[in-house]
Amino acid sequence: MSQNIYDDETFFNNYAKLPRSINGLQGAPEFEYLKSLLPPINSETSIVDLGCGYGWFCREAIKMGSKSVLGIDISKKMINKAKELDTTLDLGSGDGESQSFSKLIKYEIQDLEKLTSITDNQSFDLAYSVFVFHYLLDLEGFLRKVYSSLKKGGTLLFTVEHPIYSCSKYTNYWIDYQNNAEEKIWPVSHYSFEGERISNWLADGVKKQHRSIGTYINTLINTGFTISHLNEWSPTDQQIKNNPSLLIEKERPMILIIKAIKN
Amino acid sequence: MSQNIYDDETFFNNYAKLPRSINGLQGAPEFEYLKSLLPPINSETSIVDLGCGYGWFCREAIKMGSKSVLGIDISKKMINKAKELDTTLDLGSGDGESQSFSKLIKYEIQDLEKLTSITDNQSFDLAYSVFVFHYLLDLEGFLRKVYSSLKKGGTLLFTVEHPIYSCSKYTNYWIDYQNNAEEKIWPVSHYSFEGERISNWLADGVKKQHRSIGTYINTLINTGFTISHLNEWSPTDQQIKNNPSLLIEKERPMILIIKAIKN
Repeated sequence: MSQNIYDDETFFNNYAKLPRSINGLQGAPEFEYLKSLLPPINSETSIVDLGCGYGWFCREAIKMGSKSVLGIDISKKMINKAKELDTTLDLGSGDGESQSFSKLIKYEIQDLEKLTSITDNQSFDLAYSVFVFHYLLDLEGFLRKVYSSLKKGGTLLFTVEHPIYSCSKYTNYWIDYQNNAEEKIWPVSHYSFEGERISNWLADGVKKQHRSIGTYINTLINTGFTISHLNEWSPTDQQIKNNPSLLIEKERPMILIIKAIKN
Repeated sequence: MSQNIYDDETFFNNYAKLPRSINGLQGAPEFEYLKSLLPPINSETSIVDLGCGYGWFCREAIKMGSKSVLGIDISKKMINKAKELDTTLDLGSGDGESQSFSKLIKYEIQDLEKLTSITDNQSFDLAYSVFVFHYLLDLEGFLRKVYSSLKKGGTLLFTVEHPIYSCSKYTNYWIDYQNNAEEKIWPVSHYSFEGERISNWLADGVKKQHRSIGTYINTLINTGFTISHLNEWSPTDQQIKNNPSLLIEKERPMILIIKAIKN
């Protein structure tokens, strides 16, 4: 069973303060890139968001035209928050259709590693997941379920913490190179020692699984997926201009984005 | 035009001292892994080695059964050395067939970026290349030629310096973490700033092109290849047992291995 850190009170409260929690996809600078990788979305497009959190992408998918979105998350608190936002946020038409999110988005509280509901129904055009797969112990077993749940030609689009970001057992913060604060280096170690890493991000004792890029790619291929795109996200010049603190994100990638297709 | 560093006297003389120059594939610990990714090789298998150097893989391919191997290298000195080894090394049968390498391997001195001879003939089952692509300025143009040169279903198997290894503009050597010589970290910076890196390895002023893994993968996909396998090489337990100095190679990958198939 996966660690349900999101229902931890400290974690949940700190998570609520993140820009991407408050501002949704506008607070997630990598979303612009992710958006460019989405398949065409229309009223027929069936979508599952694996680890949907507050449901920001579920609502975005509805705005893009989908009439069928399933959000799954292990955390009851997250799902409750998602449902609350569905009713309080307006769909954008301003004509009183603010209830539409609730009608079109279905939520399930489920541990992704024990997932049964999406298996073998081949009903989804798109499986979407952001910062979730690095929590899963059995990546291959999970990906087989995702594969089974997709229609032929369907898309899996996901992000995880980049292995360069997650690998070290010593630390995960910037170091001044030769004591020069202008020259930041990111310390890499233990890259090829895959397995559990404990982080104290948002709460103490958060368990994550460090995996190499090769493991992600080869597991997807072994499961039957075709690799369609890989990106080690870094901010655009415009994003840096708007938010200069993003510049350091070009020094080492924090986010690995992979798009894969079911053959 | 590519920098022909291999014909530089200093570089060539230092290159000659490397274990992988003296011992061939037995001196290249990643070859064991590469070998496991090779397609079946028999007398019908047509092979091109892009940047063949001393011709070690060309000869290995003949030993594996191929009767048709083309080695291409920009360096006249390397090709001369390869031809010399072809005549002095025995094919292994011990029956005086030591000339066979020379009969079965053809060599060409060519800048891979200006390559014309292998284009559009769709004659190869396998294009093989070790530590070469990071010298090329126009990766996409080059890969299009390689793609054209392969038969349908043909394999491209190559290694490059891993971007974690090549990215930094500050340094590329280990640093003690918190002044503890037992805790080595690899300093990563400039990862998303692709382009030229100058190294002083074997000779001063060696020009290499740093590219992200994403760029390698997406360029291959855009060219028409299907990604078949990706590995960020690290030594096996047995290799470390035989050569304990290899242990540190598990801290950060130095070698990126990619296998791709022509659809």
